[in-house]
Amino acid sequence: MRPAFELTATDGAARAGRLRVAHGLIETPAFMPVGTYGTVKAMTPEELYGLGTEVVLGNTFHLMLRPGVPVIAAHGGLHEFMNWKRPILTDSGGFQVFSLKSLRRITEEGVRFRSPVDGSEVRLTPEDSMEVQLGLRSDIAMALDDCTPHPAAEAEARESMERSMRWAARSHARYHRDQPPGGLFGIVQGGMHGALRLASLEALLRLEWPGLAVGGLAVGEPEEERLRILETVVPHMPADRPRYLMGVGRPEDIIAAVLRGIDMFDCVMPTRHARNGHLFTATGVINIRNRVHQSDLSPIDPECDCYTCRHYTRAYLRHLDRCNEILGCRLNTLHNLAFYLRLMRSLRQAIAAGRAAAFATAYLARRAAAVAVA
Amino acid sequence: MRPAFELTATDGAARAGRLRVAHGLIETPAFMPVGTYGTVKAMTPEELYGLGTEVVLGNTFHLMLRPGVPVIAAHGGLHEFMNWKRPILTDSGGFQVFSLKSLRRITEEGVRFRSPVDGSEVRLTPEDSMEVQLGLRSDIAMALDDCTPHPAAEAEARESMERSMRWAARSHARYHRDQPPGGLFGIVQGGMHGALRLASLEALLRLEWPGLAVGGLAVGEPEEERLRILETVVPHMPADRPRYLMGVGRPEDIIAAVLRGIDMFDCVMPTRHARNGHLFTATGVINIRNRVHQSDLSPIDPECDCYTCRHYTRAYLRHLDRCNEILGCRLNTLHNLAFYLRLMRSLRQAIAAGRAAAFATAYLARRAAAVAVA
Repeated sequence: MRPAFELTATDGAARAGRLRVAHGLIETPAFMPVGTYGTVKAMTPEELYGLGTEVVLGNTFHLMLRPGVPVIAAHGGLHEFMNWKRPILTDSGGFQVFSLKSLRRITEEGVRFRSPVDGSEVRLTPEDSMEVQLGLRSDIAMALDDCTPHPAAEAEARESMERSMRWAARSHARYHRDQPPGGLFGIVQGGMHGALRLASLEALLRLEWPGLAVGGLAVGEPEEERLRILETVVPHMPADRPRYLMGVGRPEDIIAAVLRGIDMFDCVMPTRHARNGHLFTATGVINIRNRVHQSDLSPIDPECDCYTCRHYTRAYLRHLDRCNEILGCRLNTLHNLAFYLRLMRSLRQAIAAGRAAAFATAYLARRAAAVAVA
Repeated sequence: MRPAFELTATDGAARAGRLRVAHGLIETPAFMPVGTYGTVKAMTPEELYGLGTEVVLGNTFHLMLRPGVPVIAAHGGLHEFMNWKRPILTDSGGFQVFSLKSLRRITEEGVRFRSPVDGSEVRLTPEDSMEVQLGLRSDIAMALDDCTPHPAAEAEARESMERSMRWAARSHARYHRDQPPGGLFGIVQGGMHGALRLASLEALLRLEWPGLAVGGLAVGEPEEERLRILETVVPHMPADRPRYLMGVGRPEDIIAAVLRGIDMFDCVMPTRHARNGHLFTATGVINIRNRVHQSDLSPIDPECDCYTCRHYTRAYLRHLDRCNEILGCRLNTLHNLAFYLRLMRSLRQAIAAGRAAAFATAYLARRAAAVAVA
């Protein structure tokens, strides 16, 4: 089914809403844990449901290489393959291909690259990306875009953006050729150039999209630059459709973007940080590998009610991490995702109560106070 | 509390019983998953309870090195440290120390070895082992024994066994010096020499033990030799106390030992095999890494009702394994432990019904038939 969005509350530029897609309802602002290879690393679906996860992101690039679309399609799609009953958004594969740098070649047709799995040459055109995503049967698919390098001068960013817009049109045409299982989102590009961003949005809006994303951010730019781009482009994005900021980010980045009208987020940070022992707390990130936790009988975060914090000490988690125990990755991941999903819930409640800005101020003040004390 | 054992059924030499220890009841024949570093690798306690796990084994050697007894004792013991509410048996540390080979030196006092963690010299005497196990507050502790090399001629095996018996007496004295939290088991040694095994048992029985183990098997000896030793020694072991065959083994080894009167088992096989993609089924072990499973939509074992088999295909599990995904280790471990614990349940039921031998025959015949077909 085509994604349907309704706003339930606004508070300044911040919005709370409900996005209905084929596999269920997503309350926004929403965070999407990343399930690279058909699994959110270390988690079962039931654990993710228990945390309140309503949607996960699947990586087209990784899944097309391993196990490949035929295996997933034989299961009926990515949902059945990974035993995930709620919505899935798939990316286009573009971002990962562009990250290969020297191993890829871009033409108007699309991208050709050497598979990091077996070294074979692989082609990814807008049509290829759509065929993969249609094969995965995701609820939300993303148009293939040309990821502008950072930094990029105006001419380079313009050329890249204009190619992205031609690819967006090809993605749109191919996705809608047959009966699509979900909906396709377009992606605004244009680097750090506000005028290009607006031109990109204008070009996209010549076609019909059930949602739009802002791509090409979280690529190493300073925070102010990212916020400037959001403040330039978001007010012109259709208010009746969800807005997705791709690849962002830290809790404070998410809060800042929500205050500027963004509805959807994805990032590997909570899951990857967890596996590296970096754990989120109300007063900042702790490194569980630090010796200071060796005999610490307290939980990661005394305010957290997740399974990990209810049952395990920092000393135990540090021990598991030192011994490279899988349970350590599990418990840390569970905690970090609980932190992110609780943050999103708090943001939705704050928006509904008309105190989004106050929530953001209090959140940042508490961390700042903890840093000042430390 | 001191372990209390009662037999509930016998069937030939096979026995079913109930072992009550400080943290609960263990139905025998019992299999103890191995929790080396204070975690059964990849599993939460709740998952293990769900499989029917009634007792886990903790490794004294590993835990004394990481995180060390003070950290665990600060939690109140190993149960609290690892959030495990059911019984724990700890080994003596001897087996792992003896496996260090060139890095250890044995004297009458005990063993000195280089820590594989930080290279420091560590001492493990019978008294040290007891102090560690008392600090861990396990329900069942094991006497420190000298692990006889395999193969060992009669003179070498005798010397080793006699040292083990002196260490057993020292273990016994130190364990009972204060109020012990559980009970201490003695270990029969003597290599592959039946007369030495009987002499070892006789020496042990000069002291009071709530249970006895057969050690020094599963060290590379042929199956017939192991069974010959069991048939020699088990009939002379007190019938009113649990008998524990250390480190065994494959499902067929467990069945054979149960038929000869063994009540308790531990082995890393189900958990280690799982992480290597070797999965147990009613018709034998499959290797999920095999290409034949690439597009296989069937579960690991159609007869298995575990979480993994109810929700995931072989194709998905193979994919997770290829991508080194933690969820793969989890799902495989869950399945293999479900297989082992179901086997123990079936054995207990078969003994109660007086059809232990028939169960064993049917079990082995089915695997043999599958091998013949394959």
